[in-house]
Amino acid sequence: MKIAQVTPLYEAVPPKLYGGTERVVAHLTDALVDLGHEVTLFASADAATKARLIPVRDQAIRLDPAPFKSDLAAHMTMLSEVLARADDFDVIHFHTDMIHFPFFARCADKTITTLHGRLDMKDLPQVYERWNDFGLVSISDDQRRPMPFVNWKATVHHGMPADPYRFSPKSDGYFAFLGRISPEKRPDRAIQIATALGKPLKMAAKIDAADKVYWETVIRPMIDGNPLIEFVGEIGDHQKSAFLGGAEALLFPIDWPEPFGLVMIEAMACGTPVVAFRCGSTAEVIDDGATGFLVDTLEQAVAAASRAHLLDREGIRARFELRFSATAMARRYLDVYGDLLARRPFAEAPLEDVVTPMRPLEERNFASA
Amino acid sequence: MKIAQVTPLYEAVPPKLYGGTERVVAHLTDALVDLGHEVTLFASADAATKARLIPVRDQAIRLDPAPFKSDLAAHMTMLSEVLARADDFDVIHFHTDMIHFPFFARCADKTITTLHGRLDMKDLPQVYERWNDFGLVSISDDQRRPMPFVNWKATVHHGMPADPYRFSPKSDGYFAFLGRISPEKRPDRAIQIATALGKPLKMAAKIDAADKVYWETVIRPMIDGNPLIEFVGEIGDHQKSAFLGGAEALLFPIDWPEPFGLVMIEAMACGTPVVAFRCGSTAEVIDDGATGFLVDTLEQAVAAASRAHLLDREGIRARFELRFSATAMARRYLDVYGDLLARRPFAEAPLEDVVTPMRPLEERNFASA
Repeated sequence: MKIAQVTPLYEAVPPKLYGGTERVVAHLTDALVDLGHEVTLFASADAATKARLIPVRDQAIRLDPAPFKSDLAAHMTMLSEVLARADDFDVIHFHTDMIHFPFFARCADKTITTLHGRLDMKDLPQVYERWNDFGLVSISDDQRRPMPFVNWKATVHHGMPADPYRFSPKSDGYFAFLGRISPEKRPDRAIQIATALGKPLKMAAKIDAADKVYWETVIRPMIDGNPLIEFVGEIGDHQKSAFLGGAEALLFPIDWPEPFGLVMIEAMACGTPVVAFRCGSTAEVIDDGATGFLVDTLEQAVAAASRAHLLDREGIRARFELRFSATAMARRYLDVYGDLLARRPFAEAPLEDVVTPMRPLEERNFASA
Repeated sequence: MKIAQVTPLYEAVPPKLYGGTERVVAHLTDALVDLGHEVTLFASADAATKARLIPVRDQAIRLDPAPFKSDLAAHMTMLSEVLARADDFDVIHFHTDMIHFPFFARCADKTITTLHGRLDMKDLPQVYERWNDFGLVSISDDQRRPMPFVNWKATVHHGMPADPYRFSPKSDGYFAFLGRISPEKRPDRAIQIATALGKPLKMAAKIDAADKVYWETVIRPMIDGNPLIEFVGEIGDHQKSAFLGGAEALLFPIDWPEPFGLVMIEAMACGTPVVAFRCGSTAEVIDDGATGFLVDTLEQAVAAASRAHLLDREGIRARFELRFSATAMARRYLDVYGDLLARRPFAEAPLEDVVTPMRPLEERNFASA
C-alpha cells in the first residue's frame, strides 16, 4: 500500500527529548515499512525514518533556536506539499488534529486522522462535526467521551518497538514516577503512596515553567527531608530501561483524562507493573491484576502498590509484545486503511494490498508494497 | 458595496482591554457603515458594531474562562461560515493572517488580507509566496521589509475615531509612557530621557507574566527611589485621554520592528507630540518636527523631548484627523476594494459601487451600498 504519514512539526520524528505524538508517528512509520509497505513521511528534515522522507522544514519547531517562527505557517507549507502529491498515495494518514481539513475537503475519503490529544475542549466538537467526512481514529475509547457523535472509524492503541526496552526479571525494590511535575499527573499521590508503605520512590520528571509554582509550593516541600524520595530530574530515552525496569511498580496516579499514556506501556515493556488510577485510558491499557492494578482511592493505591511485586513480570512483557508493540499498532492501522480503501468507490489498489497479510519479519526486505 | 470583515477571535470587537487588531477592525467596520456600505462582521457574539454581526463564537477567546479551548478550531468554524456565504459579498476582508488561504483558494480574487503583525518570522515568507493569489495589505511600508516580494496591494495605516480622544490644548508638564513593560518597548530609555531632563514621567503599562523578570531586575530598580517616575499600572480606554492629553510628549523609544503602533496616533488625537526612535513604522506615522520628533540616539531623544512643548498641539490634532481618523482609513480601504473589483474579470458590481464617491456624513442613512 502507498501510505503517507503526516506528522506535527513541533518535535523531530522521533523527538530528541519529549514529544508523544511524533514518537508514535516514528514507530508507526517504521513498522509499516517493516511490514512491506511503501511509506512516505512528511516531517522536518531532522527525522530519522525507514520511510521515504519529504522534508518540509529544516528542523522541528520547538527546539529551533530561531527567535520568531510560526507553527501555523510551517504546517500550512507542509500540507500544501502533501496536497500536491495526494494522487501518489492510497491513504494519507494525518496526525495533525484538524488543520488539514480545509486542504483535503475533496479527497477526505482517502484520508484518516488520528487524534492524539485530549478532546474535552471548547470549539473542538463543532469542527469535527462540520468536517464529518474525515474519518477519525481515537487512541483510546475513553478519549472519545467528550465527542461521541463524530466520524470515529476505530480505536488504535499506541505501540512501541520492544527492542529499546530491556526486560528486567526482578526489581530493585523502589517505586517509579515518570512524567511532568504538574497537578494533573498527581506526583503528590505518588509520594503519599510510597510514604505510606515506607518504600523508596524515584521521581524522574521535568518541571515546565508553567508548573514552577506547583513544584515550589506543593511537591518540593513533600520531598524535602523525606529520605524515601529521590528526585532524579529529567531522564532521556537511554535511561528509561534502567529506571523503569528497576522499579517494583510504576505509579501512575493521574487525575485527568489521559488519552493514552505512553509511559504505562514503556514500564510494561520492561516487565514492570503499573498502579494507575482509573482515569482516562488506564482501564484500557492495564489488565487489572495482570499487568498492574486499577484503583480509585489512595487507600486502594497503597494496597495495590504493596502487592505489585506479586505480579508476573515475564507475563507483563509478553502482554506488552502482544498488545502494544509497534507491529501490533501498525497491523491495526493497516486494517483501518483497508476498510477505508474497501469503501472507496474507485479504489485503484489491488486486493492484496488492501487486506494486508501478516508477513514474517525475515521477509520484510523483499516485500513489495 | 457588500463587504465582509473577518476578524481574529482572540479579543472582542472592539476589545474589552488590550488588543490592537480587533480594535482596528471595529473602527474600520463602523466607518465603512458610516460611509454607506453594507458591511457584515464575522466575530464573536460580544462584538459591538454598527454592521450586521454574524456571531461565530459565544465570546472572544482570550478572556473566555473555559479551561480548555482551541483557537484553531474556533477560527476554522468561523472561516467555514464565511465560506458558506462567500457569494453574498463583493469583497471579503480578512484580518486573520494566513489561516483562511486554504478555504478561499478558489475565490482569492475577491479577498483582501491585512497583515497586522511583525513579519520577520521564519516560516512566513514561504506561505505568502505560495498563496500569492491572495492580495495583501501592510499597515506600514516598513512592515513589508522582511517579505518584499509577496503580493502586496497597498499600505493602509491604521485609523481611530476622533471622538473618544479629548483634545488637550496644553500639557501638565510630564512625559508619558504607555504600553507593555518589555525589553523591546524600552521603558528603560523613557526613564533615562525623563531623568536627564529632570522632568516627571508617568508610566501606564501592563506587565505580562513573560516580562516579570525584566520588570523586577531592570525596570523596577530604575524606578525605586526615583521621585520623577510615577508608575500607574494598566489603564483603560476611558483614562487614556487624560493620561495622554496631559503629557508634554509621549515617549516611544522602541527597539523592535513595530508594524504600526496605535499609541502614537492616540497621543496625536489628544494633541500630544510623540518622541520616537526611528524604528519600524515610526517614520511613517510621525511628521518629524511637526507631530513629534524622530531620533536615533538617547542624546537626540533628550534634546527632542526638551523641545516637544514647542510643537503646535492643535496642528497635531488636525494632522491626526487628516491622516489617522477611522474615516481616512476606511476611504483608503475602499480604494483598495475598488481596485480589487475593477481587476476581477467578472465583477458583477455596478461601477458606482466600485469607485466609491466620498459621501457627506448626513447622507449616510440614505445611501445604499
